[in-house]
Amino acid sequence: MTVSIEATLRARLGRLIGEELRACEAEIQRELRSSPVALIQDLTEYVALAGGKRLRPILVLLCARLAGGPAARAARLGCVVELLHTATLIHDDVVDRAPLRRGRPSANARWGDDAAVLVGDHLYARCMALLVADGDLAVMQALAGAMVSMTEAEVFQLERKREGQLGEADYLRIIRQKTATFISACCRLGGLVGRLDDDGVEALASFGEHLGIAFQIIDDSLDFDADEARLGKAIGADLREGKRTLPLIATLERARPEERARILRALRPPTAEADGVPAELDVVEAHRLVKVYDGVGYAVRQAAAYAGGATACLDRFPGSEEREVLGLIAEYVVQRDR
Amino acid sequence: MTVSIEATLRARLGRLIGEELRACEAEIQRELRSSPVALIQDLTEYVALAGGKRLRPILVLLCARLAGGPAARAARLGCVVELLHTATLIHDDVVDRAPLRRGRPSANARWGDDAAVLVGDHLYARCMALLVADGDLAVMQALAGAMVSMTEAEVFQLERKREGQLGEADYLRIIRQKTATFISACCRLGGLVGRLDDDGVEALASFGEHLGIAFQIIDDSLDFDADEARLGKAIGADLREGKRTLPLIATLERARPEERARILRALRPPTAEADGVPAELDVVEAHRLVKVYDGVGYAVRQAAAYAGGATACLDRFPGSEEREVLGLIAEYVVQRDR
Repeated sequence: MTVSIEATLRARLGRLIGEELRACEAEIQRELRSSPVALIQDLTEYVALAGGKRLRPILVLLCARLAGGPAARAARLGCVVELLHTATLIHDDVVDRAPLRRGRPSANARWGDDAAVLVGDHLYARCMALLVADGDLAVMQALAGAMVSMTEAEVFQLERKREGQLGEADYLRIIRQKTATFISACCRLGGLVGRLDDDGVEALASFGEHLGIAFQIIDDSLDFDADEARLGKAIGADLREGKRTLPLIATLERARPEERARILRALRPPTAEADGVPAELDVVEAHRLVKVYDGVGYAVRQAAAYAGGATACLDRFPGSEEREVLGLIAEYVVQRDR
Repeated sequence: MTVSIEATLRARLGRLIGEELRACEAEIQRELRSSPVALIQDLTEYVALAGGKRLRPILVLLCARLAGGPAARAARLGCVVELLHTATLIHDDVVDRAPLRRGRPSANARWGDDAAVLVGDHLYARCMALLVADGDLAVMQALAGAMVSMTEAEVFQLERKREGQLGEADYLRIIRQKTATFISACCRLGGLVGRLDDDGVEALASFGEHLGIAFQIIDDSLDFDADEARLGKAIGADLREGKRTLPLIATLERARPEERARILRALRPPTAEADGVPAELDVVEAHRLVKVYDGVGYAVRQAAAYAGGATACLDRFPGSEEREVLGLIAEYVVQRDR
């Protein structure tokens, strides 16, 4: 089922925006290769050309096409959002001390935290320079706002983790700010480069926001029951880092008191040393309880509802291949296994 | 002598741009306090309100005044450059694993690398949002260009450190890109908000570039012979981190082969473990050799030449209090002891 929707989506994307995607990919590679410093080029190519899904540029290109915008500019902006995304991945892995990314050592594991922090900063600066060259204040405002929101949510998430607290409302606030705002900005960019009126642009932005929430819920759910090889990182990594994601929050709400206590032990206690590692047995037991209480099932149902909300935002646009493929992306986001 | 020039400068700045500086300071505090996340507010206030010299906003304000620009906008841009500078300090201390900043634990020592990376990113994003709100593409271009150049130089410096190589030409390239470009951008901003023609703006930018080189050379020299309490960090920290700065480069060029070998041993060898600490005796000996060969004296003479070059860039402007105080800053930068 999953493979089939992925294959279908890939084929339809290829027919619809294959040329734009290749132009965007060429733009990304040109940007990465333009640095005079070898370490910058090596590290950014390693992360940006590691087989990411290119969801964000795809959304820029599809929305731009739906909005009737010029393909060349959409490809340039698609490049910018992918480089911004790459910078966030590089820094996130430093912050999470992640050893792996897409099945290979993370950039920080390979080149050190110092290089990863600096190269991430450099990539952010390059994106800002590219946006200045593009020269559209509305585009800049959308992306600057998304970056403010994203980074604020990341710090808020860290703060809550340290306090050992996170309920469903805070979780939703965090993923909305952290993931959905940026994905929404990508869709907004597509609308802005086209000829849509304000309501049309807002509808695309709203599609992106719903889609982004669904995307992140599934991302967090994959930490509980994906195929490690296919996912490219270790299962249970979020749990070991003390991150409370929706499957776990749902399980905590349904579990008996002694089971709750066991799950809370699996999460790194806020008073422990920074390098205190939870007993592996607690982690295994927490995973078992998430299965028992169907925490992943609950999360996936929530994601499906948000994906449905995303598709509904497209109702105002006349039927088109672009609209259908955007709807297919919303389905894929819920059904994907990596 | 040093105290006297600092006191004179402070008094003249107070008379000339005291009001603008207070407005800028109020803007900085308002920005820092506007975050809904306590960890963001605590960490950024801790670093930004720790008694920094405010060199960058002072340059924006003075140059704006010399250029006849509106004070309120200059104060807002002064706030942006100080927040950008704060973000770079926060990340630099993560990269250098610095335990101290201005005599207190660094932000990373106090809140962890994860918080410092994320809050630094957030501050960058906030600065971009402030610049978008200001809405001037020339201002954005100057700062985006400076950030690209700065971060590129930081990575280049890391690359060279790892290769265990750095001569005077590379050193100058690094400090020009890392420090001088940003200080130059601050002066350019002042020119841009005023009514100067292109040549006038370029003259201010060139003043800033020369000033920035002088500033960084002295910063690096203070690592060899400042008063630790006054400097607010340990003497010799750069050397222990394996950084080759101008006093050391000059000493290496003048020293006898066996002395060179001793200095190179004090620098962390590129093949050593990341946490390999050089024998303290080598560090002490390297410091002694820098004194013997007058490495600091050489560096200070270079800095003085750049400061002189900075002042010469101001010759094209009619005599004014602003011009005099800018010249005094160039003198102060060379003579300062912290």
